[in-house]
Amino acid sequence: MNHDQQRSAEGLLFTDQYQLTMAQLYFRLGLHERPAQFEHFFRRYPNYGSHQAGYCVNAGLQWLIDWMQQTRATDADIAFLRSQHGVAGERIFGDDFLDWLRAHGHFESISLHAIPEGRVVHPNVPLTVVRGPLAMAQILETPLLSLLNYQTLIATKAARLREVARESAVLEFGMRRGPERGSNAGSRAALIGGADFSSNVGLSHVLGLAPKGTHAHSLVQVFMALGESELAAFRAYAEIYPDNCLLLVDTVDTLGSGVPNAITVFEALRRQGHRPVGIRLDSGDLAYLSIQAAKLLDAAGFADTTIVLSNDLDELTIWQITTQISQEAPRYGVDADALIRRLTYGVGTRLITSAGQGALDGVYKLVDLWTDAGWTPAIKISETAAKTITPGDKRVWRLYDQRGKATADLLALHDESPAAAAELMLRHPSDHTKYRSVAQAELSELEPLLVEVLREGRLMAELPPLDALRVRRVADVERLDPGVRRLVTPHIYHVSLSQRLWELKQDLIEAARGAA
Amino acid sequence: MNHDQQRSAEGLLFTDQYQLTMAQLYFRLGLHERPAQFEHFFRRYPNYGSHQAGYCVNAGLQWLIDWMQQTRATDADIAFLRSQHGVAGERIFGDDFLDWLRAHGHFESISLHAIPEGRVVHPNVPLTVVRGPLAMAQILETPLLSLLNYQTLIATKAARLREVARESAVLEFGMRRGPERGSNAGSRAALIGGADFSSNVGLSHVLGLAPKGTHAHSLVQVFMALGESELAAFRAYAEIYPDNCLLLVDTVDTLGSGVPNAITVFEALRRQGHRPVGIRLDSGDLAYLSIQAAKLLDAAGFADTTIVLSNDLDELTIWQITTQISQEAPRYGVDADALIRRLTYGVGTRLITSAGQGALDGVYKLVDLWTDAGWTPAIKISETAAKTITPGDKRVWRLYDQRGKATADLLALHDESPAAAAELMLRHPSDHTKYRSVAQAELSELEPLLVEVLREGRLMAELPPLDALRVRRVADVERLDPGVRRLVTPHIYHVSLSQRLWELKQDLIEAARGAA
Repeated sequence: MNHDQQRSAEGLLFTDQYQLTMAQLYFRLGLHERPAQFEHFFRRYPNYGSHQAGYCVNAGLQWLIDWMQQTRATDADIAFLRSQHGVAGERIFGDDFLDWLRAHGHFESISLHAIPEGRVVHPNVPLTVVRGPLAMAQILETPLLSLLNYQTLIATKAARLREVARESAVLEFGMRRGPERGSNAGSRAALIGGADFSSNVGLSHVLGLAPKGTHAHSLVQVFMALGESELAAFRAYAEIYPDNCLLLVDTVDTLGSGVPNAITVFEALRRQGHRPVGIRLDSGDLAYLSIQAAKLLDAAGFADTTIVLSNDLDELTIWQITTQISQEAPRYGVDADALIRRLTYGVGTRLITSAGQGALDGVYKLVDLWTDAGWTPAIKISETAAKTITPGDKRVWRLYDQRGKATADLLALHDESPAAAAELMLRHPSDHTKYRSVAQAELSELEPLLVEVLREGRLMAELPPLDALRVRRVADVERLDPGVRRLVTPHIYHVSLSQRLWELKQDLIEAARGAA
Repeated sequence: MNHDQQRSAEGLLFTDQYQLTMAQLYFRLGLHERPAQFEHFFRRYPNYGSHQAGYCVNAGLQWLIDWMQQTRATDADIAFLRSQHGVAGERIFGDDFLDWLRAHGHFESISLHAIPEGRVVHPNVPLTVVRGPLAMAQILETPLLSLLNYQTLIATKAARLREVARESAVLEFGMRRGPERGSNAGSRAALIGGADFSSNVGLSHVLGLAPKGTHAHSLVQVFMALGESELAAFRAYAEIYPDNCLLLVDTVDTLGSGVPNAITVFEALRRQGHRPVGIRLDSGDLAYLSIQAAKLLDAAGFADTTIVLSNDLDELTIWQITTQISQEAPRYGVDADALIRRLTYGVGTRLITSAGQGALDGVYKLVDLWTDAGWTPAIKISETAAKTITPGDKRVWRLYDQRGKATADLLALHDESPAAAAELMLRHPSDHTKYRSVAQAELSELEPLLVEVLREGRLMAELPPLDALRVRRVADVERLDPGVRRLVTPHIYHVSLSQRLWELKQDLIEAARGAA
């Protein structure tokens, strides 16, 4: 794919064909400019098989806004659509529609509310609400889902690594096994969700962050092929990076060669007044090897060096490693807590692919349409009650209890004022037997989550830098109940409908059943 | 990410930081221009948990070549590297190295041999062989792995769908759940590996293919919100696309409303001389519903319409659906084989994320280095014998038996001529107890797999269009033993070393052990 092809493949045509066939249909029926409201939400937390997420971290919004602001139909786009023919040889897209698309194929009429990036989010809550002319709001479905679903998936996985890594740094190393150019979005999402740094140079540049990395096995291999040794490779590295000396010690034999050679080099650095950074272990029993390496480093007076672990890590392997260290380290006279604190985790493949659950099931559904009767809530019924969407123009409120912990997300109609009610009814979105009532006095705060981001294409909210997104994420995670943060079988966080919204939904379900 | 940021993030800095720190080290030691040879290979077939691949389909090469030919260090890249500082405040990259990188940070000195895209490939076989100056060949590692691993992973998944879909069309629908901009690579790989068409408009444009898609549930929802019906939506669709009329029938009630309404519309189209295309089922028991839908369509004289199935399909669900149809259809008086033949499969999330195995474990290893003694094979030992790499400058030969079936891939040293030997020894790459001897007379063909693609940056091989890649894939899959093509517990295809290569590997292992 050369640059021109990439422009074609990532511009307005970065969408599914049916969005365009539907847009033409709306155009022919005169419905294309009709105001419509769509919502983006996901239905289920990622389920990694043996473990499950109890919350997600929202990510991707800024890159979606960038895409919307720089994308418009080009002559090449229109020419390609003009060249499409159906089975009977007829043109798929007519000149009338293509002329309109050439002029109006942009997102300057789209308004957008969203839950900000970095915030903790839950299923069935509108994360992004799009309002605009039906045809362009429909075409936006695919790029919006593509740009938001994947980043939210990866930010969520990173948040789990952050939980298990406690005070240790997490480095994102995934691009070599990641999804091609999508890896940049993955690295960004990882950094929002919980990774401290990334090895991805270009993406770190874009985010104003220092990329991390030192050397690979190939450095030692080169020296050995030249008839030299691992020690010579380490010495060369230390000479060039005396203040940034982190050595990969498992190319030959971790405890027999790598760690002793690293210590030799560290001692020389110390004599020259430099402070060695540490070692990296990339194979074998990482818990056992880190205990033994710590013992050797401590004995040589390098207790303050870090030990970076890598090799197919994820939240469960890190949990296993720290558990094993807690149990085994004392047997070797090593302080387990001190060892765990000095660890750094390099996480690659299993972070950038969200191993165990490779997709977030985010969808984009029509919830409201302007008709002769004004705004008219739209519904889609499903035989599975949980998949029947919640209609209408909604707001999202996060309810905090007296401890300051988030206790539920409440979806209410746009003209409701939950803060003004003495008592709030919280209805389960689909199960009519599940509801509870909360008195205002039980709550410490009712926080609106949706923020106006675009008004007819114009940016209305600040899109803050990475640091601010991380601050949001840390604050939100701290306000979760510990049970929701568990890595395995977390508590289910409540997402509820207001009584009025619940009734609207039931009315529309009945009406749709009657019509069918 | 705006366009400028994307250029930074997808250019020369689309690599891991350690590639650059190693490159600077080589520069300082005067090793940066030293000729080196690296190999890209994967170690294991994708294992999806309950099922496993017995072969992979190679993909991604053309986009790698495009990337290499259009990428070179920019002023912005150099400025970012110049701005990097280490923990002690020192610059990470010096002006000497950055001046060199500004001038030589491109891939015009790189030569590359590769197994062509679309070909069936196996573990531990060099798929891509890079030769060039050590520093730039090292920097290339990350982008090469990123651009090749993901496409090969997805092409392999698509090949499995092709197996199970038999004569039916497979449509790739994944971009909404795919990995952000990486979805374009995923769509391309799916089309190489076995998908017939994609819904991805821009990517189809780039490949010169017609994208596929008709309408979504939202079309019916819009009509219902306007106080109209599913039937009105179908009528509108048929009026605008009379020769391309494929209707999604499960928005309200598949058998009670959707299929009868579709038939009503199809009858009108037939009266006007048009041929309806078919229906799509996107929820529920797809086997049962397709039997009942077929029964209704057949009774109305639309036995020649297609039935598109979608909703989280993968190779196992398709297998289950066709098995269930074979068993149940006769009970309803429906011809099971005819029904299975008229099915089309729309596959999204589970294809573009390679569900069950989200990464190919492709690696890039130094195998040969120019030294004072000439080309010197390089090795990396691992405590796991299977992870010890096979050193040296190698060629790959595919051996076909007298039935014309591929029986093994043989790795031999560059100066060996397996075709000239009366008898070939095939050694297992790591298990010394496993070997077999094959007489030349038992073979019908010995085919060299690696092709020269780049000679010092210049393209030496044609990079053929999609159609030609598919022809290669079909031919290669047909030459596999049926046992290797099984979806579950496939036979293990033999990848072997020549006797000389085996001996070289053992000598280097011994030497490395001695040195350590």
